[in-house]
Amino acid sequence: MRLLLVNPNTSAAMTARMEREAAAALAPDAHLTALTAARGLPYIASRAEAQLAGASVLESLAEHQAGYDAAVIGAFGDPGLIAARELFDLPVVGMAEAAMLTACQLGQRFGIVTFSTTLLPWYEDAVTLAGLSGRCTCVRAVSTAFGSVLEVQHELEAEIVALANRAVSEDGIDAVILAGAPLTGLAARVADAVPVPLIDPLAAALGQAQTLVRLGARPARSGRFARPPAKPATGLAPALRRWIERGDGDDA
Amino acid sequence: MRLLLVNPNTSAAMTARMEREAAAALAPDAHLTALTAARGLPYIASRAEAQLAGASVLESLAEHQAGYDAAVIGAFGDPGLIAARELFDLPVVGMAEAAMLTACQLGQRFGIVTFSTTLLPWYEDAVTLAGLSGRCTCVRAVSTAFGSVLEVQHELEAEIVALANRAVSEDGIDAVILAGAPLTGLAARVADAVPVPLIDPLAAALGQAQTLVRLGARPARSGRFARPPAKPATGLAPALRRWIERGDGDDA
Amino acid sequence: MRLLLVNPNTSAAMTARMEREAAAALAPDAHLTALTAARGLPYIASRAEAQLAGASVLESLAEHQAGYDAAVIGAFGDPGLIAARELFDLPVVGMAEAAMLTACQLGQRFGIVTFSTTLLPWYEDAVTLAGLSGRCTCVRAVSTAFGSVLEVQHELEAEIVALANRAVSEDGIDAVILAGAPLTGLAARVADAVPVPLIDPLAAALGQAQTLVRLGARPARSGRFARPPAKPATGLAPALRRWIERGDGDDA
Amino acid sequence: MRLLLVNPNTSAAMTARMEREAAAALAPDAHLTALTAARGLPYIASRAEAQLAGASVLESLAEHQAGYDAAVIGAFGDPGLIAARELFDLPVVGMAEAAMLTACQLGQRFGIVTFSTTLLPWYEDAVTLAGLSGRCTCVRAVSTAFGSVLEVQHELEAEIVALANRAVSEDGIDAVILAGAPLTGLAARVADAVPVPLIDPLAAALGQAQTLVRLGARPARSGRFARPPAKPATGLAPALRRWIERGDGDDA
Amino acid sequence: MRLLLVNPNTSAAMTARMEREAAAALAPDAHLTALTAARGLPYIASRAEAQLAGASVLESLAEHQAGYDAAVIGAFGDPGLIAARELFDLPVVGMAEAAMLTACQLGQRFGIVTFSTTLLPWYEDAVTLAGLSGRCTCVRAVSTAFGSVLEVQHELEAEIVALANRAVSEDGIDAVILAGAPLTGLAARVADAVPVPLIDPLAAALGQAQTLVRLGARPARSGRFARPPAKPATGLAPALRRWIERGDGDDA
Amino acid sequence: MRLLLVNPNTSAAMTARMEREAAAALAPDAHLTALTAARGLPYIASRAEAQLAGASVLESLAEHQAGYDAAVIGAFGDPGLIAARELFDLPVVGMAEAAMLTACQLGQRFGIVTFSTTLLPWYEDAVTLAGLSGRCTCVRAVSTAFGSVLEVQHELEAEIVALANRAVSEDGIDAVILAGAPLTGLAARVADAVPVPLIDPLAAALGQAQTLVRLGARPARSGRFARPPAKPATGLAPALRRWIERGDGDDA
Repeated sequence: MRLLLVNPNTSAAMTARMEREAAAALAPDAHLTALTAARGLPYIASRAEAQLAGASVLESLAEHQAGYDAAVIGAFGDPGLIAARELFDLPVVGMAEAAMLTACQLGQRFGIVTFSTTLLPWYEDAVTLAGLSGRCTCVRAVSTAFGSVLEVQHELEAEIVALANRAVSEDGIDAVILAGAPLTGLAARVADAVPVPLIDPLAAALGQAQTLVRLGARPARSGRFARPPAKPATGLAPALRRWIERGDGDDA
Repeated sequence: MRLLLVNPNTSAAMTARMEREAAAALAPDAHLTALTAARGLPYIASRAEAQLAGASVLESLAEHQAGYDAAVIGAFGDPGLIAARELFDLPVVGMAEAAMLTACQLGQRFGIVTFSTTLLPWYEDAVTLAGLSGRCTCVRAVSTAFGSVLEVQHELEAEIVALANRAVSEDGIDAVILAGAPLTGLAARVADAVPVPLIDPLAAALGQAQTLVRLGARPARSGRFARPPAKPATGLAPALRRWIERGDGDDA
Repeated sequence: MRLLLVNPNTSAAMTARMEREAAAALAPDAHLTALTAARGLPYIASRAEAQLAGASVLESLAEHQAGYDAAVIGAFGDPGLIAARELFDLPVVGMAEAAMLTACQLGQRFGIVTFSTTLLPWYEDAVTLAGLSGRCTCVRAVSTAFGSVLEVQHELEAEIVALANRAVSEDGIDAVILAGAPLTGLAARVADAVPVPLIDPLAAALGQAQTLVRLGARPARSGRFARPPAKPATGLAPALRRWIERGDGDDA
Repeated sequence: MRLLLVNPNTSAAMTARMEREAAAALAPDAHLTALTAARGLPYIASRAEAQLAGASVLESLAEHQAGYDAAVIGAFGDPGLIAARELFDLPVVGMAEAAMLTACQLGQRFGIVTFSTTLLPWYEDAVTLAGLSGRCTCVRAVSTAFGSVLEVQHELEAEIVALANRAVSEDGIDAVILAGAPLTGLAARVADAVPVPLIDPLAAALGQAQTLVRLGARPARSGRFARPPAKPATGLAPALRRWIERGDGDDA
Repeated sequence: MRLLLVNPNTSAAMTARMEREAAAALAPDAHLTALTAARGLPYIASRAEAQLAGASVLESLAEHQAGYDAAVIGAFGDPGLIAARELFDLPVVGMAEAAMLTACQLGQRFGIVTFSTTLLPWYEDAVTLAGLSGRCTCVRAVSTAFGSVLEVQHELEAEIVALANRAVSEDGIDAVILAGAPLTGLAARVADAVPVPLIDPLAAALGQAQTLVRLGARPARSGRFARPPAKPATGLAPALRRWIERGDGDDA
Repeated sequence: MRLLLVNPNTSAAMTARMEREAAAALAPDAHLTALTAARGLPYIASRAEAQLAGASVLESLAEHQAGYDAAVIGAFGDPGLIAARELFDLPVVGMAEAAMLTACQLGQRFGIVTFSTTLLPWYEDAVTLAGLSGRCTCVRAVSTAFGSVLEVQHELEAEIVALANRAVSEDGIDAVILAGAPLTGLAARVADAVPVPLIDPLAAALGQAQTLVRLGARPARSGRFARPPAKPATGLAPALRRWIERGDGDDA
């Protein structure tokens, strides 16, 4: 099966790291291609930035999704997830939603731990969007400054592990999601330092994408993820404009 | 006070109608300016389209908000509402949220009635986003085809009134929101034909905007609507790019 | 438009203060009349007292509401709000509900801060009654004793501001309601001392009342706020007895 | 043990019926006294009427509660329940709340069936007040007119039984509450005609009152049902005024 | 009336204590028989153990329930409660559910205090199962080690009282449930040491059982507690196997 | 990786079918072993039967789990799921929970369709247990009688497809779970006959199990799924008794 990872940030170095860390989560028959956003911000950290990134995700998918079996949106916070599911016919997986659904099977109550307080409102909104507020006991962030978002998982490793342990003992959680694309790979490295399961959102998202592909479900022709009717569009990226204008009737 | 209405659709005729109908909802000291989106779709009707429209709302506000006391996003569904509140310092009001908050004071249970089934998932999401699912008993749409979105409030007037009455009797609601910018003005025209209060979302939004202005609350410097830190951006509309890159520190 | 403010407390000095502070929240065409309760308690602070005050609000409205466009119940906690909406045909606004609905547009999570721990259960019940528990993160009270309820906003100004700031930093709220009629006017005075918007419940209530009047919605003839049928009554205040006994059929 | 039943309606005939039907629900050592409201309405049927009845319940309890082990408020809808629990030191039981808590042990989902559509909003509010909306699947009323509220349980017996059976088959409920003081005694008479348990609210309330008395819990000196501090009062019934003015400190 | 108490633990000494403490909660016409589980664990403290205990409760009831008017499952956590209600025709009461429903009438918010942190997940699940998470503010456990589960209520009396008082002051609860069969009788002994009502789960359960018996409700022939159809069974305890294989049709 | 499927029913024919249908959902490196329950019922269909089956699942896992990477409980309704997660150290997946979590990624609202009304209360409880009531719009069952539970997916294929289509059009769902082990394989066969994605619970469970294995999370040493302390046990199946008595300290 062919999986497409869309990084909605403009950082190619981050894309490369995610691609590298993905290997352990892929079955022998699963192949991953990773894309970096052509426009936007180097690292999304607010709902305003996610609003823009969501539009960019739709542009990327319109241009590149043909021939893939499933797509993964490579940012915790899932920019454009619902819109992408509505617009395209392949399964689309979000790192935040996938991590939370996976966590539900490893704990009755999970927590989310990340590396910057700026991210909190966006990640909290992602919990609400996924309808899992009843399962997510805390969303906590390290408040120590860091130098580079690419190196933050190393720079703040001790602080992140300490915060995860505090969340376990103070909030009574049964599993911890280490959230944010820059933390990809950290969960595996520090698994022994926290007494409950740690969830790596990229690994969870790739697992969910493979599950959806093997399930073989047909695309929705009805309901809330059915593709909207064709409609004229102005000022959009060319591939996306064509996709929206073509609509349901003439996919071929 | 000066209010700015941002129509996220590309239809100038719709903007003109909204501007005309706004008069009755404005106090003597309130003045309204209305803008039409430069890019996007003539009429937003899905979550994918709203994702794109939300980005366009941010572009419009970055370019035009200076000098206004409050802004209203002129589409039921509130594209870009949370992002705009985060990014800008003036109060931003959404037609869906404002209509629902107003309805809460006229009924314990309200319903939403609109003119096209295509709109249902988007409007249902707006109820969830506003956290008012417990008060909103139904979201219903007329299923009859219509010719022109500009004339739909006349073409389907009888069907919409009939559906509002059915919602009252079958779903036990105490107030009805007539949803969708194309229905602006209809509530006043058919108020006597339905035995519970009808809410016009534009009138509600303008009322809420005036309430927020007279309240005189300071912009948030903390919390979930504080402005995100400055950050480099690529490929965005110029005014929005400048706004995001300038950030908190140097507004002047 | 003509607005009626019913103070359910027996303190005329409090009524005078509220009338004075109301000015800033009124449009040029809005005129306010304020009434003081003839019987009851000088300052309501419990659910038992609110039960009695609610009955007194109905008595006041039955006697005085004729000729007004909307009424505001002048106590945070909204005694008699639902009953008044059911019984009378003009829009009735509660200070607590109005403050909370207004706060929803300035923050995703708001908190309520007040001047006496005695008030907490009553205010907590008001949050539940409004169906906004999911948005209200905390209801907190200063525990310092004070001399006079009329002067409490000055006596405890420093403590209230400090508590509002603690609520912002500890509970992660985006807006603060300064609750209780004796705090009317405080929000405007200390706005710069707290980094999130402060909501004055009286200003919010007057804004909501004006919104409802300009909306021009018809009174409910059906649903949960339709007027109950006429019925004989014993031992009630004369105007209220007549209003209940006259019922729906013969309003004229 | 001595139990006090306060009928908040002014109908002595209804009080007499409730007293008569109570016998089967009392243990050999439980003795019941029943009071009729001195002022108010012959039969409460709206939230406005319940607001007034709640005040009257407080007056009755202030005058008569001394020497009793527990009190029952004799109207489904529980007027004044929270206020009474706050103000007085003996356990106070409401017929609606007691019926619902009892129903929770006979079904995972219960329904409420009553004899008049006018009652629906009030009873629906009682479900919300009890925090049991998640367990209560339906509140339904017979819509047939009847002659006398005292005889309605006989006049509409067939319609009520038919509606209870419809609620079982259509709404999937596991138990039915036959609600409204005028239906007292009906559940026992028609138990065989409905395939799920029927709950008589008066019997449930008397059972709960006896449970609370045998439990022997001390009155709250803290928390949301602790008695409010003493306070001057104007224009209240004498016994209630004395009770409120005496306050916590000098009960003796 | 005849009540059956099924202790799902294998400790006969615990059964004896519960039987002794039950006296104060029984009306003059109520008689109690207490059984000890033949297999299982001396003291259940986890969901895994409760899964096994629930099966054992069904075995005990199948063998002994004939001739009783109601049964009480004698462990906080209510192992087998839903299954027993489905399988048998007499009312079945759980100590956790009964304590919580009783607490709802003595406080708007209650807390649960117990003697071992090991019990927390099981008791928290019991709150969820009862659908009362909205009313239960905290579930707290003493963390001090103790010598004997039979003597723990004496060994840790001071710690339990201190924790109950902390729950009152820190969590704002209005009533405290002293949870766990080994604490039976403690509430009565320390009632004066905590400023809110204390609930003894066994007393509450016996009160609820008597309420259900006096209510005289018929067993469900429909709904979620109707007895399942007969079915062949392998490897079950003989009485239970016979009960399951006999099914609905031939009870006689 | 090695996966263990525990069928809690005593039907070896059902186990064989599940094993056969599992192939399509397994990655090239995943190997499945399937077990049939030694005692219990040929087909579980009630909460009472699930209570007993859950105990049997614990017995099977205690005896057989060594050497496996994850286990799947092979009955929709997930008997013993929470208990098994608590007791054992490998990931344990339930068919109902896994199907629902998977459905959340294919629809905002899903429905559950099954072949017998007897199953409804059990499946409804499974939705509640998974905390997904907000996402599950309906649980519906065909009411037509069938001859053999092994053949029911063929006997009632037309009725099940028709009911799934009715659920889509009447309840507005976006995805349908075909629930119950006897329907394993049906989703793939009728995927084209329903306009929204169909979810096969066994395929979903196997996908989730593989996701959890590749995630490589450590077993919980803390939290709600940490293994309970060792404890003496009486009358349990030998392997389970040994597992419980050995406890945490001496796994080796």
